[in-house]
Amino acid sequence: MIKHYTAAQILDLDKVFRINMVNSLTGFKAANLIGTISEDDHTNLAIISSVVHLGANPALMGFIMRPTTVPRETYENIIGQGVFTINHVTEPMVDRAHQTSAKYPKGVSEFDKCSFDPEYLDDFAAPYVAESPIKIGLRYVEDYIIKANGTILVVGAVEHIYLPDACLSANGTLDLSNNETVALSGLDGYYRTEYIKSKGYART
Amino acid sequence: MIKHYTAAQILDLDKVFRINMVNSLTGFKAANLIGTISEDDHTNLAIISSVVHLGANPALMGFIMRPTTVPRETYENIIGQGVFTINHVTEPMVDRAHQTSAKYPKGVSEFDKCSFDPEYLDDFAAPYVAESPIKIGLRYVEDYIIKANGTILVVGAVEHIYLPDACLSANGTLDLSNNETVALSGLDGYYRTEYIKSKGYART
Repeated sequence: MIKHYTAAQILDLDKVFRINMVNSLTGFKAANLIGTISEDDHTNLAIISSVVHLGANPALMGFIMRPTTVPRETYENIIGQGVFTINHVTEPMVDRAHQTSAKYPKGVSEFDKCSFDPEYLDDFAAPYVAESPIKIGLRYVEDYIIKANGTILVVGAVEHIYLPDACLSANGTLDLSNNETVALSGLDGYYRTEYIKSKGYART
Repeated sequence: MIKHYTAAQILDLDKVFRINMVNSLTGFKAANLIGTISEDDHTNLAIISSVVHLGANPALMGFIMRPTTVPRETYENIIGQGVFTINHVTEPMVDRAHQTSAKYPKGVSEFDKCSFDPEYLDDFAAPYVAESPIKIGLRYVEDYIIKANGTILVVGAVEHIYLPDACLSANGTLDLSNNETVALSGLDGYYRTEYIKSKGYART
């Protein structure tokens, strides 16, 4: 049976039900950990499901931040230091990665509380997640406040990429299932993946 | 073995290799079809991997458009009519859905060329994809041009949701693997998914 919800009916839903349903609607999402550091050397780690590809030349990525729910430390650190890292979440990391979404007091590091090791590579100021096989170092470029609800699109330029040789194919594509990177659905649903096929460039 | 690429090395990569690698870096992506219609009733359908959740109350979604690669008709139709649909891609739809990315001449409908049926529901002007089990009708709200590379973030407000009862859990979460919604990696890699677990709200 097909259920139909209008905008008015969505507004009338129980709050938790609405959050869960609407967060599931976009489809599968990337599971990434964002690593940052403050001016006084406090590290911060936050799971985020909204990382989006913006361009390959130059390599640009964005992510959506909700100031009311995500600890502001991530954003403050990005603005303060000008750099951040994006680290893929794999299946063995799921429990610890999800735990970074708990509201720890300011100055408490999710690296410590969630048992991840900060890793500093090639003089880049922001900490990577040592346990993550795919690590990206980015420099803050700009951000946009979405008028409709106050969320922020943060744009970063890729400065460093670290990835396992084994998941890189001859044409540059990464097989993320080979690499055990998980997918997210909704707020807290974790999924492993299985490769179906690559379709190639579509021609008329 | 771990490979390391700096920003300068990424710029020096072969173009196709760079596009494939950088498009894979963000992690798994949602696979959706965007349905639109022009003022003179020509339908358009485009696969897009950048749909992102913006908020649940009100329900808002965004997607990134690259004017140089995505047919401008999608954007023109959204601005012209003020509405568009987002439709999940399932495993049986993969071949036809990917084919919508081919560059068909203006005025030629990807619904016809890729064997999808346009469906009009509850007096909403934009066409849904009849074959898709999860369909969302959205009204255009605003857009943002990303200065760094000219891509556009299009923001839409959810006006209608259609989904199968069977994939909706008691707390509102959708089990998308139950529903056969696929995940995308890079430009053209399609993956089925398998549910691992839900972690619930994380507490310190």
